[in-house]
Amino acid sequence: MYNSSTGNSMLCRDFMRPRIIQASLKTQKEGIAGNTKVPRNVNMEKLRSGYLFPEISKREVQHIEKYPDAKLISLGIGDTTEPLPEIIASSMANYALSLSTAEGYRGYGAEQGNKALRKAIAETFYKDVRIKETEVFVSDGAQCDITRLQLLLGSNVSIAVQDPSFPAYVDSSVIIGQAGDFEDKSRMYGNIEYMKSVPQTNFFPDLAKTSRSDIIFFCSPNNPTGHAATRQQLEQLVKFAKENGSIIIFDSAYAAYITDDSPRSIFEIPGAREVAIEVSSFSKFAGFTGIRLGWTVVPEELSFSNGFPVINDFNRIVCTCFNGASSISQVGGLACLSPEGFAAVCSITDYYKENAKILHNTFASLGLKVYGGKNAPYLWVHFPGSKSWDIFTEILERTHIITVPGSGFGPAGEEFMRVSAFGHRETILEAARRLENLYL
Amino acid sequence: MYNSSTGNSMLCRDFMRPRIIQASLKTQKEGIAGNTKVPRNVNMEKLRSGYLFPEISKREVQHIEKYPDAKLISLGIGDTTEPLPEIIASSMANYALSLSTAEGYRGYGAEQGNKALRKAIAETFYKDVRIKETEVFVSDGAQCDITRLQLLLGSNVSIAVQDPSFPAYVDSSVIIGQAGDFEDKSRMYGNIEYMKSVPQTNFFPDLAKTSRSDIIFFCSPNNPTGHAATRQQLEQLVKFAKENGSIIIFDSAYAAYITDDSPRSIFEIPGAREVAIEVSSFSKFAGFTGIRLGWTVVPEELSFSNGFPVINDFNRIVCTCFNGASSISQVGGLACLSPEGFAAVCSITDYYKENAKILHNTFASLGLKVYGGKNAPYLWVHFPGSKSWDIFTEILERTHIITVPGSGFGPAGEEFMRVSAFGHRETILEAARRLENLYL
Repeated sequence: MYNSSTGNSMLCRDFMRPRIIQASLKTQKEGIAGNTKVPRNVNMEKLRSGYLFPEISKREVQHIEKYPDAKLISLGIGDTTEPLPEIIASSMANYALSLSTAEGYRGYGAEQGNKALRKAIAETFYKDVRIKETEVFVSDGAQCDITRLQLLLGSNVSIAVQDPSFPAYVDSSVIIGQAGDFEDKSRMYGNIEYMKSVPQTNFFPDLAKTSRSDIIFFCSPNNPTGHAATRQQLEQLVKFAKENGSIIIFDSAYAAYITDDSPRSIFEIPGAREVAIEVSSFSKFAGFTGIRLGWTVVPEELSFSNGFPVINDFNRIVCTCFNGASSISQVGGLACLSPEGFAAVCSITDYYKENAKILHNTFASLGLKVYGGKNAPYLWVHFPGSKSWDIFTEILERTHIITVPGSGFGPAGEEFMRVSAFGHRETILEAARRLENLYL
Repeated sequence: MYNSSTGNSMLCRDFMRPRIIQASLKTQKEGIAGNTKVPRNVNMEKLRSGYLFPEISKREVQHIEKYPDAKLISLGIGDTTEPLPEIIASSMANYALSLSTAEGYRGYGAEQGNKALRKAIAETFYKDVRIKETEVFVSDGAQCDITRLQLLLGSNVSIAVQDPSFPAYVDSSVIIGQAGDFEDKSRMYGNIEYMKSVPQTNFFPDLAKTSRSDIIFFCSPNNPTGHAATRQQLEQLVKFAKENGSIIIFDSAYAAYITDDSPRSIFEIPGAREVAIEVSSFSKFAGFTGIRLGWTVVPEELSFSNGFPVINDFNRIVCTCFNGASSISQVGGLACLSPEGFAAVCSITDYYKENAKILHNTFASLGLKVYGGKNAPYLWVHFPGSKSWDIFTEILERTHIITVPGSGFGPAGEEFMRVSAFGHRETILEAARRLENLYL
């Protein structure tokens, strides 16, 4: 009944390609027959045409047309592949069934999420760092909450992002109107502080050279580099935010993959409650990419310059612009946080981490520098002197494997490729075999 | 396991009340210890403090504290109460279970929604009006899509709303920056065209007196008045939009309640494809208030003044700011549109319509003018010369029944009460009995 075989972003592609060409002809004038008189949003106009993943999907489709018999392997978009633990699936199934009974039916839930789930999130992830359940807002995913946070902040703030970083921070910033124009030469938008985070600096920005911004987006373990910021790095970041009166929006969507003693939450750092918001997700932690569930923590102490608590405005945004995550997904989330469910989902993240180790060894055996993988389901592989879209094409042509060009995450991603470790073990092993022969 | 007993908006109340008082003291200064230097969004500052439904929840809680033994009945927030048809619940349950199998597991779906569901929506609701499945975008609900449409439009457009209307149109407009300040005297925001829609004009605005706006929000059957616009009214509206080069955002969330020949979609009106977007929902149609599922139709012909297709920008917003509705909810939606599922959900809307008839007769028997109820699950009851918050209090004190003050939907809602017909039959009959004695 449910068929997602058309893939994630083919439809993006179908929509965007031919019609954007049409609009870029610029022969159209205001007021011609059939057009409304509504101006197109200048912020939407500023956006670069291709969101990274739809562009990759497009190339994937072209490749399949060219090599219809090739067995394509995707190490591209970070999509989970392993079945849900039975206890989690059956809790959602039982709840769904109960909705057909008079006793079990429920309508609207709280916009902020079910109380039991908020409590379980606070106790599971923030037990030692004083986060209250009322500071946890359940959502339909981290990406959606990033946009809601942008709505809350509005156009009159400045932002900083790690370079490279997950494209949604920059793109949502452009959409809400915080960014200047895109400059083709630097491949950066104006008014955005790109904090270069490269191997030479242990993937942390040089804060002495970083200008103040109101908002600092920071993702750890990082997508795409796979680097988990050390405690010392995060202490520096919190100190920097405090000195500048900035707010950190900390994305911990991959925290479940941390194997060493890197902090799993920004709130492990003293003082973070006054300068940070944390966005997180069940997607990669529990295979909920299609089920849609995440959360955002806004501490009560966090205030705007006039003393108004940020949590009040976020609550208002959640009540006005959102209506809560699906009640069924929330039941699934609660099952993930039960002792049995938690153990089961951890064994799946372990499985993906083993995949990452296999791929890490493969790329290293080619003599390449490989980063990430230890605390994240992503590897960040360096191809010195090469353009990442060229490497994308070369790997695809030679091995029929989809990867992600590092330049899609920001200018500092050039020369790198992001390789996802999500996949069935036999697929990862097959990918490893093909990659071993990459330069034969 | 799943407990929503804390109610929809109590948590809103808990957050907002004490702290808003604190902030309104205005003794706080920029830069005081603990505050960041991030300015609060001026648009958020413009918002009136209480979103309507949280305010009602607050009064409800106070009433329960005052009369702990009273059996409170809520005809307030329009929340569905009847169990899902078994076929729909079991389709979601079976799908959820399949996620624990290697064959059944699915990760990310398309951001725009599952192809089969988009097709089913197009064929079920738009069969005769030429809407393609690729013009249908599945969402997590109409309220969320209203905000996404505002993100798409940006701050540089003007809007018009029916007065009275569902508060999310105006509030999302304020949040995105389209509105001027709220004026306490008129109880209107600046830069918003309030189109008075009252019984004397058959709940339709006097378009000859209506200024041009870029965007016209129009809800039919209307929340709160329960009025379904006639074909002739909608023809006038489309003509008006065409003459002005405006875009209509048509909210058809209650279309399933239409019993007469009023149009169920704006696209029944010739020419609407060039001037309208339609937002709709499974919430009231199929009892999906907690499950979260809706859709938006953007026709390919609809263009901004420069000729750029609106559908491309909406697709971009959906891909960047949203990540698709829950896959489980989408399976449930597909089951609603199967022949058996459709018949079953229609029998539930019939049940609520019978409730509406009972309540209609009750209020009419009191000598009051009652509107709506025939094509919508809401009644709109006139109390000439009274303030609607006073009537709210009077009804609550005398009958322990929660209703919604019409003034919460706009200044033209003063003197009116919205009464929801959602509820178990025995609750509605008990409410009717209590109301019969309202003036004894």
